[in-house]
Amino acid sequence: MEVSWEDSVTASINTVYLLFSAYLVFVMQLGFAMLCAGSVRAKNAMNIMLTNVVDAVVGSISYYLFGFAFAFGDGSFANPFIGTNFFALYNIPNTTYDYSFFLYQWAFAIAVAGITSGSIAERTQFPAYLVFSFFLTGFVYPIVVHWVWSSSGWLSPSSSELLFGSGAIDFAGSGVVHLVGGIAGLWGSFIEGPRVGRFDAFGKPVQMRGHNATLVVLGTFLLWFGWFGFNPGSFDKILVAYPNTTDQGNWTAVGRTAVTTSLAGSAAGIVTLFSRRLLVGHWDALDVCNGVLGGFVAITSGCSVVEPWAAIVCGFFAAWVLIGLNILALKLQFDDPLEATQLHGGCGAWGLIFTGLFAKEEFVIQAYDSGESGVSRPYGLFMGGGWSLLGAQVVEVLVIVGWVSLTMGPLFYALHKLRILRISVDDEVAGLDISSHGGYAYVHHEGNQPRFYADYMSMQSDRS
Amino acid sequence: MEVSWEDSVTASINTVYLLFSAYLVFVMQLGFAMLCAGSVRAKNAMNIMLTNVVDAVVGSISYYLFGFAFAFGDGSFANPFIGTNFFALYNIPNTTYDYSFFLYQWAFAIAVAGITSGSIAERTQFPAYLVFSFFLTGFVYPIVVHWVWSSSGWLSPSSSELLFGSGAIDFAGSGVVHLVGGIAGLWGSFIEGPRVGRFDAFGKPVQMRGHNATLVVLGTFLLWFGWFGFNPGSFDKILVAYPNTTDQGNWTAVGRTAVTTSLAGSAAGIVTLFSRRLLVGHWDALDVCNGVLGGFVAITSGCSVVEPWAAIVCGFFAAWVLIGLNILALKLQFDDPLEATQLHGGCGAWGLIFTGLFAKEEFVIQAYDSGESGVSRPYGLFMGGGWSLLGAQVVEVLVIVGWVSLTMGPLFYALHKLRILRISVDDEVAGLDISSHGGYAYVHHEGNQPRFYADYMSMQSDRS
Amino acid sequence: MEVSWEDSVTASINTVYLLFSAYLVFVMQLGFAMLCAGSVRAKNAMNIMLTNVVDAVVGSISYYLFGFAFAFGDGSFANPFIGTNFFALYNIPNTTYDYSFFLYQWAFAIAVAGITSGSIAERTQFPAYLVFSFFLTGFVYPIVVHWVWSSSGWLSPSSSELLFGSGAIDFAGSGVVHLVGGIAGLWGSFIEGPRVGRFDAFGKPVQMRGHNATLVVLGTFLLWFGWFGFNPGSFDKILVAYPNTTDQGNWTAVGRTAVTTSLAGSAAGIVTLFSRRLLVGHWDALDVCNGVLGGFVAITSGCSVVEPWAAIVCGFFAAWVLIGLNILALKLQFDDPLEATQLHGGCGAWGLIFTGLFAKEEFVIQAYDSGESGVSRPYGLFMGGGWSLLGAQVVEVLVIVGWVSLTMGPLFYALHKLRILRISVDDEVAGLDISSHGGYAYVHHEGNQPRFYADYMSMQSDRS
Repeated sequence: MEVSWEDSVTASINTVYLLFSAYLVFVMQLGFAMLCAGSVRAKNAMNIMLTNVVDAVVGSISYYLFGFAFAFGDGSFANPFIGTNFFALYNIPNTTYDYSFFLYQWAFAIAVAGITSGSIAERTQFPAYLVFSFFLTGFVYPIVVHWVWSSSGWLSPSSSELLFGSGAIDFAGSGVVHLVGGIAGLWGSFIEGPRVGRFDAFGKPVQMRGHNATLVVLGTFLLWFGWFGFNPGSFDKILVAYPNTTDQGNWTAVGRTAVTTSLAGSAAGIVTLFSRRLLVGHWDALDVCNGVLGGFVAITSGCSVVEPWAAIVCGFFAAWVLIGLNILALKLQFDDPLEATQLHGGCGAWGLIFTGLFAKEEFVIQAYDSGESGVSRPYGLFMGGGWSLLGAQVVEVLVIVGWVSLTMGPLFYALHKLRILRISVDDEVAGLDISSHGGYAYVHHEGNQPRFYADYMSMQSDRS
Repeated sequence: MEVSWEDSVTASINTVYLLFSAYLVFVMQLGFAMLCAGSVRAKNAMNIMLTNVVDAVVGSISYYLFGFAFAFGDGSFANPFIGTNFFALYNIPNTTYDYSFFLYQWAFAIAVAGITSGSIAERTQFPAYLVFSFFLTGFVYPIVVHWVWSSSGWLSPSSSELLFGSGAIDFAGSGVVHLVGGIAGLWGSFIEGPRVGRFDAFGKPVQMRGHNATLVVLGTFLLWFGWFGFNPGSFDKILVAYPNTTDQGNWTAVGRTAVTTSLAGSAAGIVTLFSRRLLVGHWDALDVCNGVLGGFVAITSGCSVVEPWAAIVCGFFAAWVLIGLNILALKLQFDDPLEATQLHGGCGAWGLIFTGLFAKEEFVIQAYDSGESGVSRPYGLFMGGGWSLLGAQVVEVLVIVGWVSLTMGPLFYALHKLRILRISVDDEVAGLDISSHGGYAYVHHEGNQPRFYADYMSMQSDRS
Repeated sequence: MEVSWEDSVTASINTVYLLFSAYLVFVMQLGFAMLCAGSVRAKNAMNIMLTNVVDAVVGSISYYLFGFAFAFGDGSFANPFIGTNFFALYNIPNTTYDYSFFLYQWAFAIAVAGITSGSIAERTQFPAYLVFSFFLTGFVYPIVVHWVWSSSGWLSPSSSELLFGSGAIDFAGSGVVHLVGGIAGLWGSFIEGPRVGRFDAFGKPVQMRGHNATLVVLGTFLLWFGWFGFNPGSFDKILVAYPNTTDQGNWTAVGRTAVTTSLAGSAAGIVTLFSRRLLVGHWDALDVCNGVLGGFVAITSGCSVVEPWAAIVCGFFAAWVLIGLNILALKLQFDDPLEATQLHGGCGAWGLIFTGLFAKEEFVIQAYDSGESGVSRPYGLFMGGGWSLLGAQVVEVLVIVGWVSLTMGPLFYALHKLRILRISVDDEVAGLDISSHGGYAYVHHEGNQPRFYADYMSMQSDRS
């Protein structure tokens, strides 16, 4: 049977759209690597960059072998809890999923562990990182994807049996991606404890500045760039016309999603700029970067279903969520070097709630029913859409916190008990790069730095 | 009413094209941040990167609220001087403008202040920067956009009443973007005066090398990458067939525009490489980077309407414009840390003139009349197209210089008179990062650098 | 004659696809610049970045003037050895080639010299680099392109007279790009000899770490990003439906190519991670980066014609090829600062052989006969496709090694004999940046570093 002209055109346009969106999402892996590297001390830069590379290469193979199957493997035995099909891309491509969809989802999957890598930075044994990354990317995350994004998932807004008649709206993953990564980071960071010297004998925090602000800004802009793939790209298809409208379809919604994304991040950035100026007395570039990212994390859930003005509201409160949680973390002597728990966890949870408050009916129908007329479904509470959507959103927050805590918590605890989670104090003071990765990331002067760990240790003993 | 299949396909293709072009233009914001950071001294790196982030986040909100309205708000009361519609995206999307067009224009708007930030680097108070950036991005720049790019603008080549029967051709903004940013920088830099120590007691320049050439190269390549969105993307639509031609339409013109862009930058780079070798005696990577950028700035006006060979001519002279203006600046003791006035102002003005000389009739009709046959309009003087286009180009140069001088000049002067424009000599010597932004961008050694401004000042007084 | 609606849509989609792929390939130029800069010592960073900029700007002009003509200038006098048409884009666009195709090929051309620049890093006179880059990009490389990728080339799989009834399959250029660059690097590096101090008096290697691991990781991820343009983009068109299939065409093959690319790089990265841990005792981020790149280089030939599982096999062995050749290079006291010979040469050759073993019949017909039914042609030996394809692949390896050796070998030797190839020992110890490029790339402290070469030399003599 010949492929029809219309089908060929549709497939080509949608594939170009989805593949280039996937490439942008992939850039976020680089963005995280640079952001993380710049935010840690120089002696651990190589370590954290290697964790980001490893997330990508290990994640590629594990997501190919089984991660994608757990997430989207519906097949004949549709199951609301876990997918059971398409292992090692068996039966891909098919009429539902082409390779471009796999690539797009792969780019999401490798990003999750990168979020958590920030929380456990500067003190984690590398083999423990490998175990954690493999388990999170290959199992814990895909299960959540299945619940929310697979058409057979029990929380899915496209399922045939909608939770509360609504399903949860987590368009690009404030919950599925960011809250998952953030809660994993919460447990990792909590079980490992603060870095040596992070709090003094009286519990007062001691600043540990990252070694390179340029890398932080580079990473932030790269993440912004990548978010244009993450959020607008999550439509998967751009060539979908809405019936009974004039000249409108996914192409308009995709553009609007890019706009809401930028506005939310910008609003959060401005709020952070001025509020931190008031709170700490200077204009802090690094805070602003984190604020912008907090705005992006929060809008990721509702980006496609809210008006641009609402995105500004979203970003405004995201900034305050982040500022508040950072203050709380210091009080509790909780040490997350990248603020990943607060940023991805806190703003991710806020993003899910926000969607339950501000989602607009017309846009919900566009995003989840291709704009079909005559359809009616719950939408944001403040927009007059009732409590059902908000309820589903709260359920998503709770089950993600529960599921990730029940899986990642015990894993980190077991690694801790086996004494393979955290490095020794000596190694932590020396830095992971020299103790585990063969040398420092930077060579400023020729010939006078220790090249190998043994040299370093002997130099230390010479001094004492 | 159902959307027709043809309209859906057209909208989808054009939206993919315009959105991904917008994403590339956004990358230029990162490119500027890296270029600027690398070109200033380490002690001011955080400051200048924050200005680039602020341009983006403040510009997002101001362009959303009123900048776009001033630029493109034609509506029923079309006005050749300022737009009056679409505030806060009211009535967007409509049949003329979709969200993707707003996003594309937004990415342009946030770039303008970034140009000027280089001119006033290393010595400007941060609150003054906020005022300047807001005023330039939200008001001064959108007005110029309206004149040249809006169909009701008095200089526009698509208006119903063409200036000199031609209108000015500034396809992607050698004038609208670069000359505007450069002239703003001229006034800012002139009113602030040179950095402390830039010229010695006898008026001789003292070299102040940027702290990181790697960032300069990174920024240059990112800008090149982004320029592929800036210039070819300015067609807005790619699915436009030219009548009475075989297999040609905007797709061919878009590709040609990408080619002319690269050729102009390359020619300028080569000329700079060899001429600087002759002038200063070494092969200077940083000069070559600036030369390449000068070529891009110059071709930005005519990129869509000239032959590839002409683009090489454009780049050749752009390099000499930049070299000449840089020599002149030193003679006049004018200190623009990024050469932004010379580069964006000088090469931008040259680009407008170049278009008046080399625009080809066929291509002008393609770009501005969708290749309609039977149309006749003025084109480049050297191509036999008469003086009308060149006249309009000269008018654009003059009115931009006038308008920006009349708005930004007084603004900078007022800030200067209020003593809130320039930082104190002490702070300038210490660096903006420690005095205004909470610490240096780089931490090379642990624990022995001043963390707060008070520490720094007390260390200074200890020494004296 | 009006352009038909179908032709316009097809041209638009394919142009968007090809142009944005070209932009991604261009990013690889930045990736190489960062990778190379990070892998050399700080004193040569400016030099190697300038070579990458020069590859782009000189390559743009030379490829415009004659490189493209040598490669694809078939015209009426089709010639299996060299193209003779389209100089300076004369007769472009035409029904076969539009500007977008030129831009895509240009982005490939400027990448080749960048590979070789790594091999001869830290010790080559800059004028010699200019000569070599011009000759390789403008002549040696385009000839190989003509043989393999032009429809009239004698090795081409699309020619009317297929070598061994098959032609060589080098889809995106494991041979055409990477082996060419690697063999050029082999001769350059061999004739120049090792860097001063690279091997001690007893022939033992002395580690010369690159100065900045962050740049290496940045470069690696940028190259990965760019490879999505390099490999999937090499289809040139995405809107090509395969007859007698259901809902399949180039769009599916393009997606699969992106998947095989990522899987090969990932597999190679994992193998390198663990094997280097076993061999040298630590987890080495830089080795993993090189391993990933080796996997990409190897899959580049067969990316479009193998199954995803085969891509993992490809990457697995690519890692071992690289590890083995690196051990061999140390034994032979061969000093290639970027391992470019081993990586691009070794893994490039392996990639060509791999394709001869694992190419799948269905995919070969898709990629080279647009999926036409009833076509039969040789494919991978291990897949039951006979020896013809493998034979053609071996021929490609041999003729590339021969051709590049016969052209670049004598060129490097002549430059060597004329004493203009390698810098003096004094300059090498001081670093190229201070001796040839006007100063170091980094300024960490103000005012106390030599600004000009003369100052440096006088400081040296003061010390002695």
